[in-house]
Amino acid sequence: MLEETIAAIRPADARALADARAHQDRLTKPPGSLGVLEEVAVRLAGAAGVSPPPMPVPAALAIFAADHGVHAQGVSPWPQEVTQQMVANFVAGGAVANAFAAQTGATVTVVDVGVAADLAPAPSLLVMKAGYGTADLSAGPAMGVPQAVQAVESGISVARSLVEGGARCLITGDMGIANTTASAALISAFTGKDAALVTGRGTGIDDETHTRKVAVVRRALSVNRLGEPLETLAGVGGFEHAALAGFILGGAAAGVPVILDGVIAGAAALVAQALAPAVADHCVAGHRSAEPGHAAALEHLGLRPLVDLELRLGEGTGGLLAHPLVCAAVRVMHEVATFDSAGVTEKSG
Amino acid sequence: MLEETIAAIRPADARALADARAHQDRLTKPPGSLGVLEEVAVRLAGAAGVSPPPMPVPAALAIFAADHGVHAQGVSPWPQEVTQQMVANFVAGGAVANAFAAQTGATVTVVDVGVAADLAPAPSLLVMKAGYGTADLSAGPAMGVPQAVQAVESGISVARSLVEGGARCLITGDMGIANTTASAALISAFTGKDAALVTGRGTGIDDETHTRKVAVVRRALSVNRLGEPLETLAGVGGFEHAALAGFILGGAAAGVPVILDGVIAGAAALVAQALAPAVADHCVAGHRSAEPGHAAALEHLGLRPLVDLELRLGEGTGGLLAHPLVCAAVRVMHEVATFDSAGVTEKSG
Repeated sequence: MLEETIAAIRPADARALADARAHQDRLTKPPGSLGVLEEVAVRLAGAAGVSPPPMPVPAALAIFAADHGVHAQGVSPWPQEVTQQMVANFVAGGAVANAFAAQTGATVTVVDVGVAADLAPAPSLLVMKAGYGTADLSAGPAMGVPQAVQAVESGISVARSLVEGGARCLITGDMGIANTTASAALISAFTGKDAALVTGRGTGIDDETHTRKVAVVRRALSVNRLGEPLETLAGVGGFEHAALAGFILGGAAAGVPVILDGVIAGAAALVAQALAPAVADHCVAGHRSAEPGHAAALEHLGLRPLVDLELRLGEGTGGLLAHPLVCAAVRVMHEVATFDSAGVTEKSG
Repeated sequence: MLEETIAAIRPADARALADARAHQDRLTKPPGSLGVLEEVAVRLAGAAGVSPPPMPVPAALAIFAADHGVHAQGVSPWPQEVTQQMVANFVAGGAVANAFAAQTGATVTVVDVGVAADLAPAPSLLVMKAGYGTADLSAGPAMGVPQAVQAVESGISVARSLVEGGARCLITGDMGIANTTASAALISAFTGKDAALVTGRGTGIDDETHTRKVAVVRRALSVNRLGEPLETLAGVGGFEHAALAGFILGGAAAGVPVILDGVIAGAAALVAQALAPAVADHCVAGHRSAEPGHAAALEHLGLRPLVDLELRLGEGTGGLLAHPLVCAAVRVMHEVATFDSAGVTEKSG
């Protein structure tokens, strides 16, 4: 399933990109005056292979949840149980991601890809466990390569099934106490940046914990074999990173744009890009996280984030906030009059 | 009408601000993890005098259109007729503002406060002319003080009537070829910043035109009497600036938040603030315009913009894009579970 998904991902269509750029310049607005949103609309045209691109609605958020053995190293002030408590909160509709999803009309699917407990069944909860939490990545591989592939393929199948159900835009979400530690390790491995530059304070840690976290990331990078993308993923990633990489690949393969949330999604997108370089053509960076590793990941992906509001929550919240902006960018291509059709004079010179 | 409106504007309610901050910290998210959006929600609670504040829906965009005598100085590459052509485009639903308004469910009202022509009647067009374009502000006052007051009161009455019609959020829009020149002069006058620092390239001008535009702004500031806010407004403003100042005051007086668009709204908000200092407590800065004067205006207003996508279009586009973000911020206050209610453990330390 992974092989065929990778093979199905095409780079942006040159003709659609050119058509979209030309269309932007005919619309009744000064050329370039919509700034970054013009490029977003052009980008989606390239990904879809047609200009204007289809409206990215309805959108579907998938929140991949998992636990991390590295939590035992004291890298987070939150108890590990919060992962499963927050899953219950998502399923009950009480989290910020639920409120933001309601705001933009997105559906919410929660996927247990490796929470360290058996969760109560619920209609919006998919159980696709690749394990009960990863092993401690600072002591050896977080998971085996077959487990990593299993989680990647779970992500692909969630993407496929959401698109089959009508979704025309996928939004990445995540939940996993300690998952910024695994993200930092993945980002350092795939971008070559030093651990200290890409390791942040997650949802709020003090200086001492931050120092320990950087040391843990360094140890993870030295004790694990970093080579092939799936090997690196298995060594220092999390189950939700693996599933998100698959989700991103699955969306791209299905021709549906994927809005990336923050640093966890950025780390997962680096895995996806290493497996299928054209995948980034199908991605939009939802927001700029306060985590320092996120900037490094986005630079490597060649993506510019849309929302920059100092969010550091995860769950998909930054991707959800970006969705109406992406819709607005595409809507312009469908609904705005051209200078000719509206009888508006163009500027001189 | 102006006096009573100014008298009705109250500063942010301290109790509601404190309640809103305390509520934010009880919600199931790490404290502060929604970044700037937490402050937006708190701000709206202070303005409304109640926490959580009411959802800012439905929203109403008003686009105030006018022409500028200073256009004769060659400060814009666009012919003056584009103002009226774009009004026709708004009324026909073909502009970017219409597409963005549709995206966020806002109504669109177009107000002719001083276009230099008689426009064809249309249901969504209000005709409240204070003149047929201003006089050239670089040669003397752009308008008389009574005309300025008339335009301000037109803005107040548009705000009142939209709120009476059910609007729970007002969004500022503008159209007026050459109106970034008047904006630069207003911003320089109210912030004390040099003309060269606050005069930008509008919707796209070359170096030569920019040099001329700075000289025109300087001349405007030296030939006009700058003193009382209304005198400064009449000297170097535009009819749409006057109407927008009234619109902002009217929204604040009615207890409805006002989302400011870009540099034109920023200049108008400085006028409103000079007349009623508490008005800024009721405003949200929609976006950061590419115009350099906008940063100076926002700093003076104490506002931080939500959207930063290099837009330089006007029409209300930046305010409209911010509206879903403001809604998301407020929705969190209404819908997200607390740590207690959701049974989620808080972080240690």
